[in-house]
Amino acid sequence: MDARMMDAMAGEMMSMAEMPAVDAAVMQACMDACAACEQACTVCSMQMMDCAPSCMNCADMCNTMMRAMLRMPGMTPASMMAMLDACIAMCQTCMDMCMMHADDSAVCAMCADSCRACMDACMAVKDAMMAAA
Amino acid sequence: MDARMMDAMAGEMMSMAEMPAVDAAVMQACMDACAACEQACTVCSMQMMDCAPSCMNCADMCNTMMRAMLRMPGMTPASMMAMLDACIAMCQTCMDMCMMHADDSAVCAMCADSCRACMDACMAVKDAMMAAA
Amino acid sequence: MDARMMDAMAGEMMSMAEMPAVDAAVMQACMDACAACEQACTVCSMQMMDCAPSCMNCADMCNTMMRAMLRMPGMTPASMMAMLDACIAMCQTCMDMCMMHADDSAVCAMCADSCRACMDACMAVKDAMMAAA
Amino acid sequence: MDARMMDAMAGEMMSMAEMPAVDAAVMQACMDACAACEQACTVCSMQMMDCAPSCMNCADMCNTMMRAMLRMPGMTPASMMAMLDACIAMCQTCMDMCMMHADDSAVCAMCADSCRACMDACMAVKDAMMAAA
Repeated sequence: MDARMMDAMAGEMMSMAEMPAVDAAVMQACMDACAACEQACTVCSMQMMDCAPSCMNCADMCNTMMRAMLRMPGMTPASMMAMLDACIAMCQTCMDMCMMHADDSAVCAMCADSCRACMDACMAVKDAMMAAA
Repeated sequence: MDARMMDAMAGEMMSMAEMPAVDAAVMQACMDACAACEQACTVCSMQMMDCAPSCMNCADMCNTMMRAMLRMPGMTPASMMAMLDACIAMCQTCMDMCMMHADDSAVCAMCADSCRACMDACMAVKDAMMAAA
Repeated sequence: MDARMMDAMAGEMMSMAEMPAVDAAVMQACMDACAACEQACTVCSMQMMDCAPSCMNCADMCNTMMRAMLRMPGMTPASMMAMLDACIAMCQTCMDMCMMHADDSAVCAMCADSCRACMDACMAVKDAMMAAA
Repeated sequence: MDARMMDAMAGEMMSMAEMPAVDAAVMQACMDACAACEQACTVCSMQMMDCAPSCMNCADMCNTMMRAMLRMPGMTPASMMAMLDACIAMCQTCMDMCMMHADDSAVCAMCADSCRACMDACMAVKDAMMAAA
């Protein structure tokens, strides 16, 4: 995500009354992790039927999560927390599936890594929200 | 959702080891409610800036929820529950925003109704999963 | 798509200066065909690796096409025509892939039927636009 | 897009019989431009009602285009060309709308720039496909 867009978004986020002020860098890292995970899951969904459904579900959830962070005026603290929990749970499911054949498939290993990174980034946003609340 | 597709899906769902057996009609009603809510939110997102961001977030979450129900082999009970909670929370947020101007805008009133129906349908799936577990 | 939503949208469409006035029923039929095709392709993408990538591409394109028809104030005649052509081409690709194993898979047969129906509905919108121009 | 994913994808693309061999760097640049344009349009869709519908349509088309490039085994040369044309047309529509208030809105100016970059990147893929055919 480029600097001009982050500036535009940071201003938007600061002006949200209900939402605890979260460090823009934590949000940006999470959006980037969601975008990377969507891409990895999209590629991985073509590898084998075993993990394809969880990869596709994870790709869609990560895109939805990223877009919601780009549109924070449409979120409340409660819906933000619930979306982050759903994204974490979906990444966990996909990672567990892909880890089963990570030794045989470099793409599944990459996908599992992206899921882990996305989970961590979502948890960091949750932590930042709770610390700021 | 047409009968042929429901037959294809019902067979798929029955064969999932971990997932409690949920009545296919309850799942179908929820997928239809998600699809209707995505459409209503998409139209409503063009009405006024006030609710547009929550409508767009809700449209994306409803589509992601519907697709996940169409791809149950990629879900676990835990990720399913978390996704349903996120969809319910996002519909609640969007409904609350749209209700603020439901008296002035027929589209916002329709969108709020669709959000309410989608929340109810997601809760029915949660109830069915818990009863079957 | 329910009657209330069609009324809201029909009003919107009538007020678009540049866009030829297309019969709302033709548009509605196309949106319904796109929604049905997205669902069929999403289910079919879990059947076999052979057609999964074209099914997923088709599901995404059909959803994007449906949403664009729900947001006609964001379209021009030129972008509308190009999107319809892309949706027709993507449905053709997916149908051709699924037809290769339609005899062995009821889901692939259903998916190919949905692709055909969506192509026809998109062509009907193109015809209506050209007749009205 | 990171190096590991590009390696995974480049292998996939080389093995496609029907598709002309396009330089992986040209494809990667186009996927990155689509991802950036989706994000810019998503943010811009909250600025003013005037360009919001075209921004949302453009965000969806750019995401669909990016995913299709990540899933090239699901494309034919014909569907790829049609999707690229649709993405170019949608970016043009969105850019034209956003340029009308680019002087007043830094976000619209950024969005118009992203649309222009995405159009150029899609045209570069088209050129590479035609040169290789």
